Amino acid sequence: MSDRKTLKIAAFAALTLSVVGASFLVSAADGEAELLARAQAMFKPLPETAQTPDRPVTPARVELGRALFFETRVSSDGKQSCAQCHQPMFHGTDALAESIGNQGKRIPRNVPTVLNTALQFSQHYGGNRVDVEEQAVKALPSGLAYGNADLAEAEARLRAISAYRPMFEKAFPGEAEPVTAANWGLAIGAYERTLLTPAPFDRYLKGDTSAIGSNAKRGLEKFMSYGCSGCHGGVVLGGQMFQKFGITQNYWELTGSTEKELFKGRDKGRFHDTKDEADAFMFKVQQLRNVAVTPPYFHDGSVATLPEAVRIMAKLQLGRDLNDADVSDIVAFLETLTGEMPENFVNAPVLPIAPFLN
Amino acid sequence: MSDRKTLKIAAFAALTLSVVGASFLVSAADGEAELLARAQAMFKPLPETAQTPDRPVTPARVELGRALFFETRVSSDGKQSCAQCHQPMFHGTDALAESIGNQGKRIPRNVPTVLNTALQFSQHYGGNRVDVEEQAVKALPSGLAYGNADLAEAEARLRAISAYRPMFEKAFPGEAEPVTAANWGLAIGAYERTLLTPAPFDRYLKGDTSAIGSNAKRGLEKFMSYGCSGCHGGVVLGGQMFQKFGITQNYWELTGSTEKELFKGRDKGRFHDTKDEADAFMFKVQQLRNVAVTPPYFHDGSVATLPEAVRIMAKLQLGRDLNDADVSDIVAFLETLTGEMPENFVNAPVLPIAPFLN
Repeated sequence: MSDRKTLKIAAFAALTLSVVGASFLVSAADGEAELLARAQAMFKPLPETAQTPDRPVTPARVELGRALFFETRVSSDGKQSCAQCHQPMFHGTDALAESIGNQGKRIPRNVPTVLNTALQFSQHYGGNRVDVEEQAVKALPSGLAYGNADLAEAEARLRAISAYRPMFEKAFPGEAEPVTAANWGLAIGAYERTLLTPAPFDRYLKGDTSAIGSNAKRGLEKFMSYGCSGCHGGVVLGGQMFQKFGITQNYWELTGSTEKELFKGRDKGRFHDTKDEADAFMFKVQQLRNVAVTPPYFHDGSVATLPEAVRIMAKLQLGRDLNDADVSDIVAFLETLTGEMPENFVNAPVLPIAPFLN
Repeated sequence: MSDRKTLKIAAFAALTLSVVGASFLVSAADGEAELLARAQAMFKPLPETAQTPDRPVTPARVELGRALFFETRVSSDGKQSCAQCHQPMFHGTDALAESIGNQGKRIPRNVPTVLNTALQFSQHYGGNRVDVEEQAVKALPSGLAYGNADLAEAEARLRAISAYRPMFEKAFPGEAEPVTAANWGLAIGAYERTLLTPAPFDRYLKGDTSAIGSNAKRGLEKFMSYGCSGCHGGVVLGGQMFQKFGITQNYWELTGSTEKELFKGRDKGRFHDTKDEADAFMFKVQQLRNVAVTPPYFHDGSVATLPEAVRIMAKLQLGRDLNDADVSDIVAFLETLTGEMPENFVNAPVLPIAPFLN
């Protein structure tokens, strides 16, 4: 645009303003303010930690839990740890469609990120773990995960690494035998409750409307008005309910999901935990924080890219065919959920020296 | 020690000095100086990097190599990486007696630390890799490691992670197709050549005789005079020759080593690479840097603790039965080889987003 033309426009704008007053400008600001207000009613910024009165995040528990999170010697093959599937380098996932567990066994589900996971109403796709603490304990005797015969075997492995005892004593003072599977869960849970990733969208929710771009704002508006936020609301944009995957049609027709040996057919979600046909194809609604950096997508990792995942979700859950601009805007919004990874996650702890107990 | 006692001793020392002159002190200093001179003739402090004219350590190669070192998506099961067996949390090992590879396959050898490994004269127990670059390349089509059918499959996996292309172009400027297995090796090698761990013993070798304690000095003296340094000399205290494991008797009688399926019997070391009976039970002499923090010990991890490993080595290689004081002193010396881990190893890189190529 030439300088002359700019000047003319500026003169016209000044004239207009002098005639119609500030109504146009106020209207744009109103639009911003209204969008923010709607978003604030639907979502919440991240808290400092995910602690609860029952699940205190103390420094001693976090320090112990951080070591245990990366500890491989409590598994029967000496190779499994929380971090094995929840790698810092992949934003708390393993980047695989389906995970690999003890002795190389295939686990027919995609690993959700550990980041912000403590803020969900339950854990696992079927919601069969009430919280991260229970999840950590029950992984110990799982043949697909840590592979111990029972909790006693896991505790024996823990006690064989003598340097952990003073750390457990400090984290659980006054207990006669603090080195237990239950305290393993509480310590790892305390650590996981610190793994929160504040993102540009949090700054936006706190009132900084410059924290996200105009594409993202259009995406946010569509995300809410199309109904995505009906399930993906709250502090982690999801993780607060079960929902049938495939309301308008069978999900596997669009995702290309295959039958799974472990489930003797299709993965029917929560049904495999409750054996109740009413729970067939019900899955916990996944949280969306860091979704842009944690492909592949869905419970079986059947979809590789975020635009495709967005398109499929709109179709299957809301019966809506998104156009390219819709997808692009919604993806731009979802990218504002990519947060800063905590220092105590990116830096691996150096673990106590002790031989692996075969 | 109380201040009063310190003063008394100082007064006594002053009195002694005034009577016998400086002869005692000069003699002690001579002893210190002589030990240091002998050590300096036998060992060398770590260089800044392990680069050579053919293997330059450029920032672009190191940055790329660091990412590739932690990269799992170039393996056929999407789970193997250099870091999988060379974990920062275990000082560059996996803390297992015998490692676990692709699809959970057992590898009947103990993982040596990656720290300082580039300074050895060859890689692997049998020395069948000339350097870390060749080791990294040859791991790609190994069924026990990355599990690719061939290098072309590995290259296809590398090229599928598009964000690596500009990194390869920067690290290998002017090449028509820089994303190759050969450059994978050169980049990872450049990174590994930065993984050096300066230790108290280096400060000692550079003349700071206060850098190691008196136990360690006694241990150093014994380490040299008993003959350990005959094989474990140089910059990494080993890694410069092959030697028969079990000169005075069969090693497995003392270590409790078992027969291995892969070797159809005992592990005969270099023999399995050369098929020459003269190489039976010949193993590359292991480097000793960080030995105190990288149990278990020997090629099959058959021995759990360092004192036992020291005792067995003296018996099997030198025909000497060490007493408890010898073992304690030598272990104290070996502990001075525990170095500071590099920042670019302890901190995991965040890797480019891309789906795993099944």
